[in-house]
Amino acid sequence: MPTYKAPVDDTLFLINDVFHIDRYGNLPGFADASPDVIEAVLREAAKLSEEVLTPLNRVGDKEGCTRAADGSVKTPTGFKDAYRQIVEGGWVGISAPEEFGGQGLPATMTVMVNEFLCSANMAFAMYPGLTQGAIAALLMHASPELKKKYLPKMVAGEWTGTMNLTEPHCGTDLGLLRAKAVKQADGSYKISGTKIFISAGEHDLAENIIHLVLARIEGAPAGTKGISLFVVPKIMVGDDGSLGARNGVSCGSLEEKMGIHGNATCVMNYDGAVGWLIGEENRGLAAMFTMMNEARLGVGVQGLAQSEVAYQNAAIYAKERLQGRAITGVKYPDKAADPIIVHPDVRRTLMSIRAFNEAARALVMWTALKEDVSHRSEDEKERMSADDHMGLLTPVIKGVLTDLGFANAVSAQQLFGGHGYIAEHGMEQFVRDARIAQIYEGANGVQAMDLVGRKLGKDGGRALMAFFNEVQTYLKERADSDAMNVYLKPLGQSLAHLQEASMWFMQNAMGKPDNAGAGATDYMHLFGLVALGYMWCRIAEAAIEKLPKANGSAPRYSAKLVTARFFMERMLPETATRLARIKAGAASTMELPEEAF
Amino acid sequence: MPTYKAPVDDTLFLINDVFHIDRYGNLPGFADASPDVIEAVLREAAKLSEEVLTPLNRVGDKEGCTRAADGSVKTPTGFKDAYRQIVEGGWVGISAPEEFGGQGLPATMTVMVNEFLCSANMAFAMYPGLTQGAIAALLMHASPELKKKYLPKMVAGEWTGTMNLTEPHCGTDLGLLRAKAVKQADGSYKISGTKIFISAGEHDLAENIIHLVLARIEGAPAGTKGISLFVVPKIMVGDDGSLGARNGVSCGSLEEKMGIHGNATCVMNYDGAVGWLIGEENRGLAAMFTMMNEARLGVGVQGLAQSEVAYQNAAIYAKERLQGRAITGVKYPDKAADPIIVHPDVRRTLMSIRAFNEAARALVMWTALKEDVSHRSEDEKERMSADDHMGLLTPVIKGVLTDLGFANAVSAQQLFGGHGYIAEHGMEQFVRDARIAQIYEGANGVQAMDLVGRKLGKDGGRALMAFFNEVQTYLKERADSDAMNVYLKPLGQSLAHLQEASMWFMQNAMGKPDNAGAGATDYMHLFGLVALGYMWCRIAEAAIEKLPKANGSAPRYSAKLVTARFFMERMLPETATRLARIKAGAASTMELPEEAF
Repeated sequence: MPTYKAPVDDTLFLINDVFHIDRYGNLPGFADASPDVIEAVLREAAKLSEEVLTPLNRVGDKEGCTRAADGSVKTPTGFKDAYRQIVEGGWVGISAPEEFGGQGLPATMTVMVNEFLCSANMAFAMYPGLTQGAIAALLMHASPELKKKYLPKMVAGEWTGTMNLTEPHCGTDLGLLRAKAVKQADGSYKISGTKIFISAGEHDLAENIIHLVLARIEGAPAGTKGISLFVVPKIMVGDDGSLGARNGVSCGSLEEKMGIHGNATCVMNYDGAVGWLIGEENRGLAAMFTMMNEARLGVGVQGLAQSEVAYQNAAIYAKERLQGRAITGVKYPDKAADPIIVHPDVRRTLMSIRAFNEAARALVMWTALKEDVSHRSEDEKERMSADDHMGLLTPVIKGVLTDLGFANAVSAQQLFGGHGYIAEHGMEQFVRDARIAQIYEGANGVQAMDLVGRKLGKDGGRALMAFFNEVQTYLKERADSDAMNVYLKPLGQSLAHLQEASMWFMQNAMGKPDNAGAGATDYMHLFGLVALGYMWCRIAEAAIEKLPKANGSAPRYSAKLVTARFFMERMLPETATRLARIKAGAASTMELPEEAF
Repeated sequence: MPTYKAPVDDTLFLINDVFHIDRYGNLPGFADASPDVIEAVLREAAKLSEEVLTPLNRVGDKEGCTRAADGSVKTPTGFKDAYRQIVEGGWVGISAPEEFGGQGLPATMTVMVNEFLCSANMAFAMYPGLTQGAIAALLMHASPELKKKYLPKMVAGEWTGTMNLTEPHCGTDLGLLRAKAVKQADGSYKISGTKIFISAGEHDLAENIIHLVLARIEGAPAGTKGISLFVVPKIMVGDDGSLGARNGVSCGSLEEKMGIHGNATCVMNYDGAVGWLIGEENRGLAAMFTMMNEARLGVGVQGLAQSEVAYQNAAIYAKERLQGRAITGVKYPDKAADPIIVHPDVRRTLMSIRAFNEAARALVMWTALKEDVSHRSEDEKERMSADDHMGLLTPVIKGVLTDLGFANAVSAQQLFGGHGYIAEHGMEQFVRDARIAQIYEGANGVQAMDLVGRKLGKDGGRALMAFFNEVQTYLKERADSDAMNVYLKPLGQSLAHLQEASMWFMQNAMGKPDNAGAGATDYMHLFGLVALGYMWCRIAEAAIEKLPKANGSAPRYSAKLVTARFFMERMLPETATRLARIKAGAASTMELPEEAF
């Protein structure tokens, strides 16, 4: 049975000592987020994750969700009770506006808490997580009436939310979307069509489900410019907030899938369901995309979360499992064999995962803080620069953290040998669950194209230049630091690779966009490595600062320095290969005729 | 529903035009393997794989095996019928000695056929595959009486075989093994103990199951030097070959696992079961290891096989699925969208997989031919050099082909987007099935240590030097070929990386073996890339030779050249990163105290 211990101390170190949240005190909500409050919230979230959600992870995988003939869906044993605790703790709305019953705390805190929930039970955490996404969309685009009607119950977690984009023939290419909306005399719309892969589309955790649905209003233009966004409640809501009749939306079937069995992945049938327009007609995609950065950041966190929990269990196993002897000589003569952690290849695996986890957590936090700035700062320039950061880093975080999160879950499973392939240890579930994060919310190839095709050149490359400038300035200002040199030098080299790759695109992909497409995934990973490397420099610097008066915590900071070195020596060198691939261009990739495949 | 088309033409091209099987005519059995016979056998195996086994792959995954209260195990619907066709076709024994009812054809042909069977249905193919492994062990080590008693039925496929090594506390480290054998007056032994993860341990496909079991004879030394190998039939066999009473061995339970559900993974309880010694007392591990190279080669083939079938289905999907438009402009204006194969990132994925598959198939075949030479040649030097090759390349093939086979199954699944996560398309099953090949028959970390710790230095590095010498000679002899230059140059560079890494181990790992352990996995993959690169050169050379008079087949040979270039430009550059990691040494990998994990 897998276990989980939320990395509260590491999270506090990052937020306090690396990113100095106290410097954001001027932003609304941040004054309330004192170190004490943050720690208390994190410890409470840790408790919920460790004690309530972790034990339900295997249960959820084994039982899955079941659909009755009437279309109702039952979640696994224990999910209902656990969800009640989510509602009682007010976890859905910790960062939502107080006006709608939220606590108004920084969005960064929701991101930190969500990592814990996702590590403990990813399939479960999707129910509140999707609700947070739907809340964000309503907050940004819905009319005051719709907000008033839906948000308080959603912020409280009493109602959950969903996103309905995909149709059988249309995933990435939403321009092909067919779901129809017909305007009614009262200003509402009747929505008809089939949506697939709808997470949390139907379940028994909440008394109502608020669907956000993309559909095409009768007579709207074809393609992406004729798509509108609607709110469609499962059960009609009266003006007084009372629940009325069932709406014309139902779960047609549940998908049988590789993982996240505890979450109901539904085919949703809309049959003249009553809905209300969110934002403007035909501007549904834009409305959807303004919340995409946060949703994708959340999926990146899922990658990190599975990597973290898989690491923890692999580390425990590696210290317990006795097998073979250290090649440098017996380490535990009193035991029948040494624990496998003595073997360098096992260590290499564990170090690789933790070197990712700790920097990925920093990268997520750095970016979540930018999200807060972009929403809460009163300084337009600050908001713009934070927006730039979000736009640029979001595809990197989504793509790289889920690719590596999955790869790490696989590596952690590998340390268990045959026992990792068996369901009872839970390691193979982490792999199956982590896999979806590479796919949904825009498959990772789409993230790479978003980065290379859209984000690099946006506003004359402003966001990219700002990123380069920040890292370069950081390197330059510390160039004389002997203590930092071992981290700075490799980062400088990899930054140069990233700059060279960016330049190569400028020179070779404008006229031949296939050169950008063929190099996009490698560029995304090259970018990710540089961003993670930068995080390691900042972590190392903070650790060096803390060490002299760390006393009992000294081993924790020393470990940061060793892990930073491991990252620089073992993981960052990959940037050279990524650059070589990019510079190979698209020729051999595109040359074969289609029928050759 | 996934499909499969066996790569008969590619296999024939490799065996005839790249490896020139006609040059092996002096080896026993090879004279019978005329081009016509090979083609007929492959086409028959293709038919069986495509028409019978492929449709059962999903069935097997869905139904799995079920154990009744009496310990009997039922295989999935259709497996029994399909297995009957394996027996009728004589597929188990095509390479087995005619003396025992086999056809005596080259072992290479069994390897080729097994790729097809594994692509079509890996879980199913393990039943005959494990029988072939048990046959090999009996052939090499059993007494004439035992051979006579068991081999004819096993070669015919009427009885199946298993390997019983693992116990709950003992996997890689077989020295910890506890199963006991007590000698009886009649020369037989009574075997007691529990074995786990026993593939095909119990089932309803054959009337008898012949277990090969490692156990410790009463009073034998502790550790690996006190282990003996026994043959233990499920049902006792009389001297006249008649089946008698049940032996004291039974399936205690079936493991619930990530994949290969169609194969019964059993906990086997031995309770005073009657067994007979194979080979010498206390020499069981040695007996087991002499057949290990072939078994590991077979697992490498499983990696290739899953990569191949996943590729085929992804290629079909990429040509059918309409989504988005080519970045270079609309390609199919009459369709609602372009097929996703127009997108460079999709192409990159497909090219990466096929560039692996085609070279991996060559690498397997090259090594299988060495297996034949090592067993069948009358020239001692030839046998020795073939043995050297097998020893050196086997861990590379097992580790690299299964690591990349799995990664490729994941990439192929990715092209399906959300549809790849859903069971019905079968892509996620390829991923789950492929995963086991990285783990069993020696986890890949163990392969890497076998390569670096055992094989590199063996006999003064004779095998390694021979490999270097072959590739270097190849490069030198073609140095003036303009047509080959584009392939030779990158290979030369990567070979230099491999040589540098080998040298680095010599200089830095003798005194500090952790430096070898920490670099072992990277070295294995570096070696694999060079070996695959060498295969691409040989393939390209054969394609260049064939092209002028290829007529209708010209596109096939041209495609080889494009794919070879892709491999050189996009995949081989990884050797630089692997080398950098190796040369980083073990310091940061080993520095943290155990409690830091």
